[in-house]
Amino acid sequence: MTERAKRFNVTLRPHFKTHQSLEVGRWFKETGVTKITVSSLDMANYFAEEWDDITVAFPINILEIDIINDLASRVTLNVLIESETSLEFLKKHLKHPVNFYIKINIGNNRAGLLHYDTESIDELLEISNNSDKLNFIGFLGHAGQTYKCRSKGDIISVHEEAKKKLVNLKNQYITNYPNIIASYGDTPSCSVAENFDGIDEIRPGNYVFYDMIQVQIESCNVNDIAVALECPIVGIHPKQSEVVVYGGGIHLSKDRMNDETFGTIYGNVAKKTNKGWNELIANTYVRAISQEHGIVKVPESDLQNYKVGDTLLVLPVHSCMTADLMKKYQTLDGQTITMLTQQ
Amino acid sequence: MTERAKRFNVTLRPHFKTHQSLEVGRWFKETGVTKITVSSLDMANYFAEEWDDITVAFPINILEIDIINDLASRVTLNVLIESETSLEFLKKHLKHPVNFYIKINIGNNRAGLLHYDTESIDELLEISNNSDKLNFIGFLGHAGQTYKCRSKGDIISVHEEAKKKLVNLKNQYITNYPNIIASYGDTPSCSVAENFDGIDEIRPGNYVFYDMIQVQIESCNVNDIAVALECPIVGIHPKQSEVVVYGGGIHLSKDRMNDETFGTIYGNVAKKTNKGWNELIANTYVRAISQEHGIVKVPESDLQNYKVGDTLLVLPVHSCMTADLMKKYQTLDGQTITMLTQQ
Repeated sequence: MTERAKRFNVTLRPHFKTHQSLEVGRWFKETGVTKITVSSLDMANYFAEEWDDITVAFPINILEIDIINDLASRVTLNVLIESETSLEFLKKHLKHPVNFYIKINIGNNRAGLLHYDTESIDELLEISNNSDKLNFIGFLGHAGQTYKCRSKGDIISVHEEAKKKLVNLKNQYITNYPNIIASYGDTPSCSVAENFDGIDEIRPGNYVFYDMIQVQIESCNVNDIAVALECPIVGIHPKQSEVVVYGGGIHLSKDRMNDETFGTIYGNVAKKTNKGWNELIANTYVRAISQEHGIVKVPESDLQNYKVGDTLLVLPVHSCMTADLMKKYQTLDGQTITMLTQQ
Repeated sequence: MTERAKRFNVTLRPHFKTHQSLEVGRWFKETGVTKITVSSLDMANYFAEEWDDITVAFPINILEIDIINDLASRVTLNVLIESETSLEFLKKHLKHPVNFYIKINIGNNRAGLLHYDTESIDELLEISNNSDKLNFIGFLGHAGQTYKCRSKGDIISVHEEAKKKLVNLKNQYITNYPNIIASYGDTPSCSVAENFDGIDEIRPGNYVFYDMIQVQIESCNVNDIAVALECPIVGIHPKQSEVVVYGGGIHLSKDRMNDETFGTIYGNVAKKTNKGWNELIANTYVRAISQEHGIVKVPESDLQNYKVGDTLLVLPVHSCMTADLMKKYQTLDGQTITMLTQQ
């Protein structure tokens, strides 16, 4: 991703909500990354220990004004605005300057102002124009609709359309605000698209680990996946050709995907090797999960490979959610890597 | 549930995986409960501080033998067995006696031996018969297939069939093992069924809070729900008639349900009152969630009732998962209740 960012002449501001770990963050520092994205003020607070330019890519929650003021006194804090109420509130209560992006809905239909809603944008800018604490730095969008794609070609089409919405907006406002940028997100687009003209900054995050959803939508290959949930085997059911593992919704999350052959699945299973894992085990998948259990369907002829007391490796459907639930990692050589833990 | 247990002459051994809180546990003590169920050894360890008879309702994970031995030295520990490997391992490595149930699949098709698989049951009992550490206490089943029901009548049919499987097994073995019991679970059955003949112990858990799934399957009414996620409003989208809240997959979990009118939903919204909440707000539901965001669909005519900086109350689809993610509660009078936190 670092190479791609250089090639397209965009700043890489990776999203750290996927790994949520200071230690993993240091791997990014080694590649020259100096700015990061997070999804909550708690996360910003955690990373502020080692990073001094942090974007909180979530519409600002004014009930957290004390944390905002504290953070803004220590780091360059960039927040997302989509509401006049929030901006008025910040104008009144901020004790230190913050940068803000206006959050734009570029097709994901989740958060943000509609990309053609210049009336609301103008109203926001009128609020901030005479404030010495509010610094408008540009437009931010997340083309999360790429997660509905099922091929590289699809991703590129979605990307082109989403990018155009964001870049057009920047171009409309750049005369009056010559320093504004277009900040663009999502791992699928940033992994496969080849044209980022007009974009100044990208914020992919999931690519640090990738996962089975990313394989399905063709933003990565299965051997790009860098995280697995190691699950103890607690039961073998030969008649059902199933293996019961200790690994359920509180570990993997209940994110699911649709497998062409098997319908809804909750993860795939990778072949263990001495040094980690390699390819998927064919026709082997997590068929069902409850709070603590996972039920793994395996081909009858493979049953002999599993035994109670061993572990198997599940490649998660959605690595961000699995990491958030597990609260720590173990590297292949047995070291523990800690993460943010909220309480 | 306490009254129902008395009426049906069964022991109530409530499942504490839903609330995971010592303090909430004390409310049960006040009603006479002396035995509990949990879903992991970590949870057993946490509750062992105040409870001395604990069933871990999950097929035993032999990789945790040290925790098992430690717990067995301090409390009456009851574990679930469905595998010869596990039982042989325990026989060899246990330092203190433990009780075990044989876990039976009574239709849920998740964990457990098939209810007619007496060959495997006999093999297990042969292993334990000459052990002074392994005490066979009965058969345990969970009729989790009630979660697919959509009416009280359905639940009762499923219950009757599941119960029969468990009770028949007990009756087959009781001559040789006169003290064994039939331990039966799931909140839906235990909430609505009226016949528990042959059952000795019930293990419902979700009923401490209930949730929208339980309303849908008719094991409770919406005003029985005793937990809500309070979500700050961070955006209002009049054109889409939607409200963006700070409350996503890492708070609510991604458990979903199918609403007859609106399709897949991730929670409903309750009307706030001075003292908490009362009924649902009509036609108002969580349409989509991502890691931190929830998108709440509201009728256009209600939009004026919401503003940025206020909060709204989401009644979760699945309260066990939401509680596990949130790691603490706040009571209606503002007190914090702590829970188990794993790290």
